[in-house]
Amino acid sequence: MSYFDAASAAPLHPVARQALLASLDEGWADPARLYREGRRARMLLDASREAAAEAVGCRPDELVFTPSGTRAVHSGVAGALAGRRRAGRHLIVSAVEHSSVLHSAEVFASEGGTVTQVPVLRSGAVTVESYAGALRSDTALACLQSANHEVGTEQPVAEVAEACREAGVPLFVDAAQSLGWGPAEGPWSLLAASAHKWGGPSGVGLLVVRKGVRFAPQGALDERESGRAAGFENIPAIVAAVASLRAVRAEAAAEAERLRELTGRIRAGVARSVPDVEVVGDAELRLPGIVTFSCLYVDGETLLHELDRDGFSVSSGSSCTSSTLTPSHVLKAMGVLSEGNVRVSLPMGAAEEDVERFLAVLPRAVAGVREKLGAPAPGPTAATGADELVVDSLGKLCPIPVIELAKAIGQVPVGGTVRVLSDDEAARLDIPAWCQMRGQEYVGEEPADRGSAHLVRRLL
Amino acid sequence: MSYFDAASAAPLHPVARQALLASLDEGWADPARLYREGRRARMLLDASREAAAEAVGCRPDELVFTPSGTRAVHSGVAGALAGRRRAGRHLIVSAVEHSSVLHSAEVFASEGGTVTQVPVLRSGAVTVESYAGALRSDTALACLQSANHEVGTEQPVAEVAEACREAGVPLFVDAAQSLGWGPAEGPWSLLAASAHKWGGPSGVGLLVVRKGVRFAPQGALDERESGRAAGFENIPAIVAAVASLRAVRAEAAAEAERLRELTGRIRAGVARSVPDVEVVGDAELRLPGIVTFSCLYVDGETLLHELDRDGFSVSSGSSCTSSTLTPSHVLKAMGVLSEGNVRVSLPMGAAEEDVERFLAVLPRAVAGVREKLGAPAPGPTAATGADELVVDSLGKLCPIPVIELAKAIGQVPVGGTVRVLSDDEAARLDIPAWCQMRGQEYVGEEPADRGSAHLVRRLL
Repeated sequence: MSYFDAASAAPLHPVARQALLASLDEGWADPARLYREGRRARMLLDASREAAAEAVGCRPDELVFTPSGTRAVHSGVAGALAGRRRAGRHLIVSAVEHSSVLHSAEVFASEGGTVTQVPVLRSGAVTVESYAGALRSDTALACLQSANHEVGTEQPVAEVAEACREAGVPLFVDAAQSLGWGPAEGPWSLLAASAHKWGGPSGVGLLVVRKGVRFAPQGALDERESGRAAGFENIPAIVAAVASLRAVRAEAAAEAERLRELTGRIRAGVARSVPDVEVVGDAELRLPGIVTFSCLYVDGETLLHELDRDGFSVSSGSSCTSSTLTPSHVLKAMGVLSEGNVRVSLPMGAAEEDVERFLAVLPRAVAGVREKLGAPAPGPTAATGADELVVDSLGKLCPIPVIELAKAIGQVPVGGTVRVLSDDEAARLDIPAWCQMRGQEYVGEEPADRGSAHLVRRLL
Repeated sequence: MSYFDAASAAPLHPVARQALLASLDEGWADPARLYREGRRARMLLDASREAAAEAVGCRPDELVFTPSGTRAVHSGVAGALAGRRRAGRHLIVSAVEHSSVLHSAEVFASEGGTVTQVPVLRSGAVTVESYAGALRSDTALACLQSANHEVGTEQPVAEVAEACREAGVPLFVDAAQSLGWGPAEGPWSLLAASAHKWGGPSGVGLLVVRKGVRFAPQGALDERESGRAAGFENIPAIVAAVASLRAVRAEAAAEAERLRELTGRIRAGVARSVPDVEVVGDAELRLPGIVTFSCLYVDGETLLHELDRDGFSVSSGSSCTSSTLTPSHVLKAMGVLSEGNVRVSLPMGAAEEDVERFLAVLPRAVAGVREKLGAPAPGPTAATGADELVVDSLGKLCPIPVIELAKAIGQVPVGGTVRVLSDDEAARLDIPAWCQMRGQEYVGEEPADRGSAHLVRRLL
């Protein structure tokens, strides 16, 4: 089996495993107690906090451990917004933040706050200019991920942090995907991360709040973790998480280079050997281990199952793989194809031969799915003579509306139009993306009795 | 070393350790994913949920795993109050709930809710009558622990649940101290528990919400754990927690009998061999492993250090052992002596010889602390002739004000009074408790320039 979904969760690092075992016996007691077992637990907790702070580049008293990265984001965003209530009720997020940040923003909006979503380029990155342009006099907080979890694109965090500092607005950095590789740069104010992304155990997140940043923790609390993360500290897991962070950091420079070469090989190999594919995300400014691509006329869930059968564990932002049947908000914000989407995120230590085997297997897997779905073969189709064709794709899910459009387009003359009726959320993203890939014109979307009508003009 | 603080945290059960090790390799992946590692994690999570539900006596879809017992309480109380907002904004808690429940109540009160604290008897238990009497037509939620964490007294949960059911009010049961011994009885509506109390690892709590109970989760959320506990599931710890629960339940009946006999021995032995001691908590309706007593003229922190040096890890509700320098709210609500307080909570498997050694060591340890503090020797003191004496204990902490009172009382004639000036929070509890133990009259407390004046009349 080749596990290529490290951006979801990395397997436990051997160092983490060892540290966890050792501290199960030393770190189970209550660190608030005065007796021997309590003092021992406290020492482990303090030492872990110091080591974690060193890796982050902050003071130990600025860092608390939370039960997960998600909880670190939820508490961090809510606490920063409440602490800056007097400054205003405006929040900035990028359009491609992790769902935990977007959920926090939704809560804020439901309480009367105003949220600005900064759009991204087709690469997935914000520009410093557009981000800085969103800053207002009543901005309480700005959030920007260090790098995107779905496509690997790095964000200009240092520059945005600088712009925020000049505006007197604290910047919250979700560093979940990058902290294992190195500290976040620039004068950021708050930071969150998650241990199981760097080979630590589940159940440990970090929340850093720089001294001087106004912060008012929300909800019920207790005296643990400076009043910022309630509940009994999970010290064995914390010890393991920090041990693992130090271990991966020691290997980070060399491993980043190695993985970057492997993902570069996938970027090039996929584009070469799979027809009708769009490799997404920034080609240069990207995390070492993540590469994402979308395959036209492919059902993401079926492709994942095919790859799983071949021994590859990958994830997908296609609508069919989400519980809500909507495509990933990241792909949507980037305006790229979402059907047949595959994210490969290599864990540290991923083997070159597994990557080569993936590249060998993928074209057949994609072709197999396309064949099952009756994807259109390349080549000319007999024109029907009509100038406009209507394709009724109502009730059909991704990638069927795009497949039906592709079959119909050859039936109208150049200059003619195809009107696709669809109630599938993914069509809104994938029909324009198909037009761009195929050199056809996406005229626009109109409301229809059910769903929408997508109008496409044949140009060639 | 004898670890006698299982009510804070129990050492990891061997079964939990084994299960944790096994599931580190099987349960680290994201259970929401479709690939093999994800499906395996999902299977472990589902099986754990079923086993936990069986132990609780609920349906699997009524139970979610949280990052701690504290978080289960915080989320459970907040969600139930929000879900019943239309019913009213009144919350009932007992005066001796765990701080996590009381913190939740504080948040509710700060948002405009009304909170009734039901008082307890000197045993630490509420009466069904007084609890039921607090129910109102606008009561949104009632909270009652299954048993008290500081003194071990069991609460009449089944009867109170019945009264709540009749009134149409959901009862939230904090079962943290008792779930390892058996399920909570009666028609309760919500329940919380914490795995590290029964020998599971840190980082796992349970929240149960019965079908039909209105529940609106608060704060930022995600799709995990039915939208009731955000963040990546800590599956290895969950598997270990549930394995441990099953293991301790299998031994519970026999072990309860054994520990009950040992704590009974401590109750009797302490009362017999330590002068001026008050054993607190219900003598019969109590958890098997907890026994609590307070020693007059003793500084709790010093006694804990003495016992730690002798190899015993116990905790204390004395003011000097708390960060706020206030005595435990539980002892305060019970109206019992708080100075020199010791809680012994035996872990499952505690050895009889350790208990015997504790009983052998304790009298000397207490006598040593008393000697250092200059506690009054029993016997008559020369009267000064004055009818009223003023003892200035301002700036002195527990147990000094009580020691100074004890020394002064013999200096006034029977019928005379001693006025103790004190700004120590513990004096408010301990001076009346001393009067009760000594057969003297506590006349009352009056405001003074600094702190309070406590008036005591000599009766014998």
